[in-house]
Amino acid sequence: MNKRFERCVVVGTGLIGASLAGAGKARGLFAHVVGVGRSLANLETARERGLIDEATTDLFPALAGADLIVIATPVVTAVSRLHELAHHAPDTAVFTDVGSVKLPIVTEAKRLGLASRFLGAHPLAGKAETGAGAADPDLFRGRRVVLTPDDDTPAELVEAMRRLWTTLDAEVSVMDAEEHDVVLATSSHLPQMVAYALAATADGAAMREEIVRLIAGGFRDTTRLAASDADMWVDIARLNREPIVEAMDEFSVVWDDLRDAIADHDESAIRAVLNASRKFRREIVPS
Amino acid sequence: MNKRFERCVVVGTGLIGASLAGAGKARGLFAHVVGVGRSLANLETARERGLIDEATTDLFPALAGADLIVIATPVVTAVSRLHELAHHAPDTAVFTDVGSVKLPIVTEAKRLGLASRFLGAHPLAGKAETGAGAADPDLFRGRRVVLTPDDDTPAELVEAMRRLWTTLDAEVSVMDAEEHDVVLATSSHLPQMVAYALAATADGAAMREEIVRLIAGGFRDTTRLAASDADMWVDIARLNREPIVEAMDEFSVVWDDLRDAIADHDESAIRAVLNASRKFRREIVPS
Repeated sequence: MNKRFERCVVVGTGLIGASLAGAGKARGLFAHVVGVGRSLANLETARERGLIDEATTDLFPALAGADLIVIATPVVTAVSRLHELAHHAPDTAVFTDVGSVKLPIVTEAKRLGLASRFLGAHPLAGKAETGAGAADPDLFRGRRVVLTPDDDTPAELVEAMRRLWTTLDAEVSVMDAEEHDVVLATSSHLPQMVAYALAATADGAAMREEIVRLIAGGFRDTTRLAASDADMWVDIARLNREPIVEAMDEFSVVWDDLRDAIADHDESAIRAVLNASRKFRREIVPS
Repeated sequence: MNKRFERCVVVGTGLIGASLAGAGKARGLFAHVVGVGRSLANLETARERGLIDEATTDLFPALAGADLIVIATPVVTAVSRLHELAHHAPDTAVFTDVGSVKLPIVTEAKRLGLASRFLGAHPLAGKAETGAGAADPDLFRGRRVVLTPDDDTPAELVEAMRRLWTTLDAEVSVMDAEEHDVVLATSSHLPQMVAYALAATADGAAMREEIVRLIAGGFRDTTRLAASDADMWVDIARLNREPIVEAMDEFSVVWDDLRDAIADHDESAIRAVLNASRKFRREIVPS
């Protein structure tokens, strides 16, 4: 049996927020969805597409009567605005978010005394396009969603959110926020930094123009992530600083070993890195 | 006017060799193509598909009467067998190859006194599948092909090869072999090493199993190259050692700066790398 929320307020109706709103409505999880945003045009798109029932730029009035508040703003905004959100929401409302770094918002929720009403979530879903126009109620189908409770989170809240995401055909993992952030530092933030550094290396190379002319598919694939929004990644680098720096240092150890193996003609050491890498790749993308 | 070769011997009928054979036949550049290989099954595929006219595993007899010899074996084999090839080929035959590292084979050709008859080529074309079954006479359409003459290469040979590739709708660049290898070290070999090191870092991480579970599209794209054949890349690392090590060192400088900027909360330094990277990415993949 799925709990149905009577008034779900989605703060931030970008790709993820609008997709979740539409998905919850389509599956009957949300009776009435209010979208809150800054861009009237984007809100109107969400409403016209039937992803939300009601659109407003005025946050606090919208919170009245809400039983579920989904924070789907950029992650820095989510952390900094949680206080006012909580202050203006009904005492009975529960909160969740969809941010890609979890410890800062979980810590802030705890500090605000929201431990019993807040459960962080991170759906590993996205696409190149942004905004409500790109939203898709099927965006979460088959995707992983991480829930990050701590010892103070009520089991019923974890179960309610697990049911919500499972109803949207997502695969739910549960781990604490710190563990999530350490894992994501390697699984998501590290490839991002690698893509940036690779493109920046080519950009700064003495033979830049010839490099641009001779770039082929391999370089393009390996730097696809470098096209991502820079502001968002500056924020993530700040919010998940320590795990990212640690993951980057682990990469450096592998990198220096590989570099030395090549410089020293140590073919068995080169082969060891290449084979470990290919085996790992086959594990994550079975052919 | 295109020069037509009467008897083209393609040594190595894998993806590139068989594609070139079929493309040259289709455009009337090669009157008769002999494919030479080790695998009878692969040769038979090439012949059945009409990419070659004649198939043999016996190299030296095949060379009799050849006016064009295309070396399309793995690059290490190409360098090591150039001597016997030259010894058994008619004195009037010209040679080209398709390897991704050029200085070793160009140097070897010169050492063997073939400077007037050898012109290195590197078509930047490929796909995930290998062998004659995956060959495609349109593989080179719109792709870049680098020709690497030196001061001793006759202008007519450069022009003949330029016409050949242009007729196959490739875009031809001309540069010396050393420059080619330095450029490719960054445009092609560096992303390869980055992909290997990224996958190997995740493979060696303390939270490996959780990382595997939470990997999404970004990590997969950034490590796509790690699925490549390890033997080939061990060879390339050896043959283009110095430029690769230099490119890896340039990457390390960018990487360490980015790591320190994140560790030191230096947002303007982080943003500088991210913006340079995004700008470069937009230049190589205009949206």
